[in-house]
Amino acid sequence: MASAMVANGDLSAVKFLAPETGRVAAVYSEVQNSRLDHALPLPSVLKNSFKVVEGPPSSAAGHPEEIAKLFPCVFGQPSTMLVPSQLGEFPSGQSLKIGVVLSGGQAPGGHNVISGIFDYLQNSCKGSTLYGFKGGPAGIMKCKYVVLTPEYIYPYRNQGGFDMICSGRDKIETPEQFKQAEETASKLDLDGLLVIGGDDSNTNACLLAENFRSKNLKTRVIGCPKTIDGDLKCKEVPTSFGFDTACKIYAEMIGNVMTDARSTGKYYHFVRLMGRAASHITLECALQTHPNITLIGEEVAAKKETLKNVTDYIADVICKRAELGYNYGVILIPEGLIDFIPEVQQLIAELNEILAHETVDEGGLWKNKLEQQSLKLFELLPPAIQEQLMLERDPHGNVQEAERYEGRCGLPSNFDSTYCYALGYAAGVLLHSGKTGLISSVGNLAAPVEEWTVGGTALTSLMDVERRHGKFKPVIKKAMVELDGAPFKKFASMREEWAINNRYISPGPIQFVGPVADRVNHTLLLELGAQA
Amino acid sequence: MASAMVANGDLSAVKFLAPETGRVAAVYSEVQNSRLDHALPLPSVLKNSFKVVEGPPSSAAGHPEEIAKLFPCVFGQPSTMLVPSQLGEFPSGQSLKIGVVLSGGQAPGGHNVISGIFDYLQNSCKGSTLYGFKGGPAGIMKCKYVVLTPEYIYPYRNQGGFDMICSGRDKIETPEQFKQAEETASKLDLDGLLVIGGDDSNTNACLLAENFRSKNLKTRVIGCPKTIDGDLKCKEVPTSFGFDTACKIYAEMIGNVMTDARSTGKYYHFVRLMGRAASHITLECALQTHPNITLIGEEVAAKKETLKNVTDYIADVICKRAELGYNYGVILIPEGLIDFIPEVQQLIAELNEILAHETVDEGGLWKNKLEQQSLKLFELLPPAIQEQLMLERDPHGNVQEAERYEGRCGLPSNFDSTYCYALGYAAGVLLHSGKTGLISSVGNLAAPVEEWTVGGTALTSLMDVERRHGKFKPVIKKAMVELDGAPFKKFASMREEWAINNRYISPGPIQFVGPVADRVNHTLLLELGAQA
Repeated sequence: MASAMVANGDLSAVKFLAPETGRVAAVYSEVQNSRLDHALPLPSVLKNSFKVVEGPPSSAAGHPEEIAKLFPCVFGQPSTMLVPSQLGEFPSGQSLKIGVVLSGGQAPGGHNVISGIFDYLQNSCKGSTLYGFKGGPAGIMKCKYVVLTPEYIYPYRNQGGFDMICSGRDKIETPEQFKQAEETASKLDLDGLLVIGGDDSNTNACLLAENFRSKNLKTRVIGCPKTIDGDLKCKEVPTSFGFDTACKIYAEMIGNVMTDARSTGKYYHFVRLMGRAASHITLECALQTHPNITLIGEEVAAKKETLKNVTDYIADVICKRAELGYNYGVILIPEGLIDFIPEVQQLIAELNEILAHETVDEGGLWKNKLEQQSLKLFELLPPAIQEQLMLERDPHGNVQEAERYEGRCGLPSNFDSTYCYALGYAAGVLLHSGKTGLISSVGNLAAPVEEWTVGGTALTSLMDVERRHGKFKPVIKKAMVELDGAPFKKFASMREEWAINNRYISPGPIQFVGPVADRVNHTLLLELGAQA
Repeated sequence: MASAMVANGDLSAVKFLAPETGRVAAVYSEVQNSRLDHALPLPSVLKNSFKVVEGPPSSAAGHPEEIAKLFPCVFGQPSTMLVPSQLGEFPSGQSLKIGVVLSGGQAPGGHNVISGIFDYLQNSCKGSTLYGFKGGPAGIMKCKYVVLTPEYIYPYRNQGGFDMICSGRDKIETPEQFKQAEETASKLDLDGLLVIGGDDSNTNACLLAENFRSKNLKTRVIGCPKTIDGDLKCKEVPTSFGFDTACKIYAEMIGNVMTDARSTGKYYHFVRLMGRAASHITLECALQTHPNITLIGEEVAAKKETLKNVTDYIADVICKRAELGYNYGVILIPEGLIDFIPEVQQLIAELNEILAHETVDEGGLWKNKLEQQSLKLFELLPPAIQEQLMLERDPHGNVQEAERYEGRCGLPSNFDSTYCYALGYAAGVLLHSGKTGLISSVGNLAAPVEEWTVGGTALTSLMDVERRHGKFKPVIKKAMVELDGAPFKKFASMREEWAINNRYISPGPIQFVGPVADRVNHTLLLELGAQA
């Protein structure tokens, strides 16, 4: 594989040649290059012979009877777990044809999931073929793929992004689309398909599993938990990959602006963080950096806070700090905050109604159509926001800002690198053992890698239903920040001190070597009951 | 010193106790903590006995006769250089009273300059006192200071920010202000003052040196080259500190969005980079990451390009890439770009005139006051920009954006850590040897640290004059990107390939250990004629 690499004195970079054409495919920095041969340890259970054992039948996160109707073939499957065993699970000599697809937004570590399943097939199912579907689920439907080889995969080991086979946001939903997927599965004679994605993509993976089984196709489908937002997790899947790296990248930046705030003594930095509806990223960044103010959407919702409550809280802290002589600070705000303030939702709903059906007069008579509480809220808003709420059709009235993409495409941390490799390797085992409709599950993550557990969890067990257009639709329940969970409680116990005193921590850039390199994020450790 | 540190199981952080009060002064991340004891090697010449030799008399960067009039006492001083010598320069037993001040915006490494001069005094002038003036030059004028001790300084070694003594943007300019500075110098019986700052602050340092000498005060003044913008440099001062770290931080982020662009295949990322008027940061980031388009303000000015030229160039590259199937890319733009487009300057000047003296009618008749070329340009602009140019009094008509402060407050790279320590150590030597009006100069930076040269350069030799309000004012000439310099030529020779092919490099986060950790930025290496 080193033959695919040519040293390049020029700008200290290293070039990769495409195996097919011999032309330059990529140019690597020294850090990227140093990551290629970073060792990826496996959990002990995967290194020795094991068997796959099953637990009791599973249910659903909500409305199990509806989920059972939607997934008659795969509902109720037990979770599976790998346990050491003198007798290995599989006869030797079996080879498989497996497809893999990246679905949805990027998360650091996706390439390592592919490396993991590839290496499993190489090590345990010699002669297997791994097809990488290009551009997300559309690649399955159009049968657009590349046959993954060691030369093809090597340059992406421990690298960020999803560019090995790229991703896409298509869903396989209509009968025609399912038909296309079946055709591809048949054409390539697929034994299995690994779907690497978030909650929607894993729901889709389960629908595919159900569909293939109902049609008596041999193709099994396994999902893999991907999202930097951290909202796809459950007991058996302690975290989604990418969350660790993304939070560390954001926390580095927050630590830097904290140093800036303390040095200049005159700025309040407002940092808006990704995470969609959930505030996991914001909470984790707070635990890593100790900002003066952190808003957690789930708490705002639980306490039914008004916009004024929220702004009063910010103003109060700023005033208290001013009394102490601190005219600076750092404030973390989750991007989904507005969704959690009931009165804002109410106002927007009323405005949408008015904009759709009424004339909005210059004189402002239209405002009489607003409920009293909504009118009061509207009058509280600055004119620029009022205007935006009236002009834009964005249902949230959010000021559209440039997203902070730096987090989702960074080089994966050691944790994400190793975790993803294990997730991919485990997915290989699950497909090899004929499982379908499960999500690859690697646990006991606070322990050394050797002690990590490996198994699969029924995707239907993560599901509830939502009613849309008169029909039940299955959805994987988003894991929100739990106010009685250890991460939030830790934060809540310290935030008053952080508000008034300055307890800023600057985590610094992600390190790949040295004692700090293998640290895991606080959220995961606290949720696992470990000392964070 | 370790006694000031208490291990803290809580969140893997380490707490520092303030030596005076025993209360928590700061909480450190593991990476911050690991940096505290990072070894700072010194150039060999500083480690053994040396003497200070002088070169020929110096001149000025422009209008030497005017500079000579403005600095009658210190103009024309020779540059000095430390050379190994059996006979040491200084008698032993001498102790000094020195003040140090941080001036202007932050740059990674400032704390190490202070560590450097402190350690020099500890090692070579036992019994010396180092006063840290608080909050920038205002601290000198108000005689607000802290006596720096090993316990006080230790927690800031190799740390980012300027929070040890903070900074400020005041200048010592009026006769009253010079009087205040003299009073402080006399009150503290200062032998010397080290001013750590950018071009303006170093000009101010030279004025102070001139003033103290003209008044027969014993206080010498030495400057130190600080700015992330990289525009304070000359032959003897190959780079300003902070540039290396800031560029690496920005380049990491650019590398991440490049990975994002390549993975998603559908975005053009426009990245606006700090650097004030000069495009050094943008150029360095381009050399580190290979974007598709990079605008260099100095080139736009030299070629007298119009706004349309610039946007046409961007559009052309985007079209060519679309033909090749690449509907994505990364574009770097220096924040000072607009200042380099002559026609934009002209338009803004005309608009300012009109807004000051004319009625701006709704019908647009006021536009007749514009010159034809300016009118054409105005009509070319999108309505939102037109509005902003008319409403805002910002003389540049810039869309005010959140500055990217992440770069200026990061943990200093190994290069900046070592370079700053040497700069501070050298400043100690210069003050000890009675020099004034010099800027601390450490050279031969492409070689191993042992071989770095150490000396001082006459601040007046960096100066030219500007005429303001009918008077000549001395200014240190900003070092702009030179179009016949090696960094620009390297970039120019490669940009066409970068535009069309994808040669993205993702430098990854700054590493503090391992083989990559000691790498120096491309600009510096290329300017020094080394293989970058």
